[in-house]
Amino acid sequence: MQADARATVGHAPLSGAAGESIAIICGGGSFPGAVADAVLRSGRRPVMFAVKGWAEPSVVDRYPHHWLSIGQVSEFFRLVRAEGCREVLLIGTIFRPPLSQIRLDWHAIRLLPRLIHLFRGGDDRLLAGLARVAEERGLRIVGVKDVALDIIVSEGVLGRHRPSPRDQADTAHALALLAALGPFDVGQAAIVADHHVLAVEAAEGTDNMLARVAELRGQGRVTTPQRVGVLVKAPKPAQDRRLDLPAIGLQTVSNAARAGLAGVAVAAGNTIIADAAEAVAAADRAGLFIVGVPEGRA
Amino acid sequence: MQADARATVGHAPLSGAAGESIAIICGGGSFPGAVADAVLRSGRRPVMFAVKGWAEPSVVDRYPHHWLSIGQVSEFFRLVRAEGCREVLLIGTIFRPPLSQIRLDWHAIRLLPRLIHLFRGGDDRLLAGLARVAEERGLRIVGVKDVALDIIVSEGVLGRHRPSPRDQADTAHALALLAALGPFDVGQAAIVADHHVLAVEAAEGTDNMLARVAELRGQGRVTTPQRVGVLVKAPKPAQDRRLDLPAIGLQTVSNAARAGLAGVAVAAGNTIIADAAEAVAAADRAGLFIVGVPEGRA
Repeated sequence: MQADARATVGHAPLSGAAGESIAIICGGGSFPGAVADAVLRSGRRPVMFAVKGWAEPSVVDRYPHHWLSIGQVSEFFRLVRAEGCREVLLIGTIFRPPLSQIRLDWHAIRLLPRLIHLFRGGDDRLLAGLARVAEERGLRIVGVKDVALDIIVSEGVLGRHRPSPRDQADTAHALALLAALGPFDVGQAAIVADHHVLAVEAAEGTDNMLARVAELRGQGRVTTPQRVGVLVKAPKPAQDRRLDLPAIGLQTVSNAARAGLAGVAVAAGNTIIADAAEAVAAADRAGLFIVGVPEGRA
Repeated sequence: MQADARATVGHAPLSGAAGESIAIICGGGSFPGAVADAVLRSGRRPVMFAVKGWAEPSVVDRYPHHWLSIGQVSEFFRLVRAEGCREVLLIGTIFRPPLSQIRLDWHAIRLLPRLIHLFRGGDDRLLAGLARVAEERGLRIVGVKDVALDIIVSEGVLGRHRPSPRDQADTAHALALLAALGPFDVGQAAIVADHHVLAVEAAEGTDNMLARVAELRGQGRVTTPQRVGVLVKAPKPAQDRRLDLPAIGLQTVSNAARAGLAGVAVAAGNTIIADAAEAVAAADRAGLFIVGVPEGRA
């Protein structure tokens, strides 16, 4: 368990040895489960550190797990060592907790001046700062690409349907828009239909954004024909890619279909797909494409 | 009525002579009424050209008016001449009609290749193109600033409350974000709270965006304290400012209060305020500031 062997699969360095435990700090949604399954497939042991108020019991309960409140920093470090984890991965939906709900232990109190500073920035800054805190304690922060490469979307079309030239142009427009938003630490997603920007994601998240477009369409306020428009997701240019990759899954595809879109385009090599088989099957049935595109293409 | 006299008030050229009729093409919302009232105060006669499906009868009915469908281009030009209007102003919420609902007359059919081309761009391109069509027919397209300067927000604080240094920093952040979005012909508004971008407006409009932030707060997904955060509105950099100025009013203030914001900052000299007295009184009661800021300040 303490062996230091490193294996390499394709171009991706596999961190940790077979059987070694990896700590997964779990935010909301189904993505923590998808990562844990991929970790299991790679022959390692996931230990879920479920954050109260964020993580979903139904996702976390299937694996070895501990529930923690935000602010229980000492307890987290104690449990991580007890479980024999040297690597930590953060995955799932997070949002800033109201300060009144944070219970701070002595470790957190010592970190407080730094945490307050971090809270004032965007998500990128908050996550990068928390990563530095863990690294100072001798832990290694790893990304999904390091431990679960088989749930990363690669370049090319998944499934039966392909983007049209119009879809490709909409994708390029959205990628350029997301790149322009980079300095502002804002959303990882936008929806463009026939060169018209329908939605830009910020605090609401991708599913809410898709629901909004479906609703605007229902109200007659978005009038592009059905099966026109692309949901595009890409990491922020300045983002620490170990910490916050964009993600899609079955729900993304269902919501994109309800929003009347033609398909979903994501940054190849830097986007997680959960429940890939189900998501692709749903896209095939609904007539949507899913495609991994080079990020630089804008 | 056909006199060609021009008057000047401050730096703003007043177009048209006293008593002359001005054609107001009305989209949705209350802003067409605010403009018509300002036109009346300036001693001219507003004639409302209410677009079916966009304009609200309760707003339009108080003035001389005609209802027209999109596509009734010949009829519009005939009525404008019959009413003695040489100037045309476009105001109110518009959205792209589904092509199936457009009834085209012969004039519109002749313009069809151009209109189809215009429909494929963003709103800016659509509006600029329609303006050129009107100008080719001998009409002059005017903006709100030309005929109703008293509903344009000028620089400085309206009402009792003032932005804090934090609010000013949030405003600068949002203005920089809106400037970066300029090339993409997307929203005129964003919400930033304590340096964190909560929402970016696209097809949904400002009221929907504010409602979303209120809802995310209710769900605990936006956790900045009450009375932190600023709604910022500014015209797109490339926008034809005769055609599509950002606008605020009583509803904007009420929705900003419900979203828990500290206030509303708008581009001075390039933002319409409707029902200014009521909007400022509501802001005073709710503890919100309203401020006109120089656009360049970012």
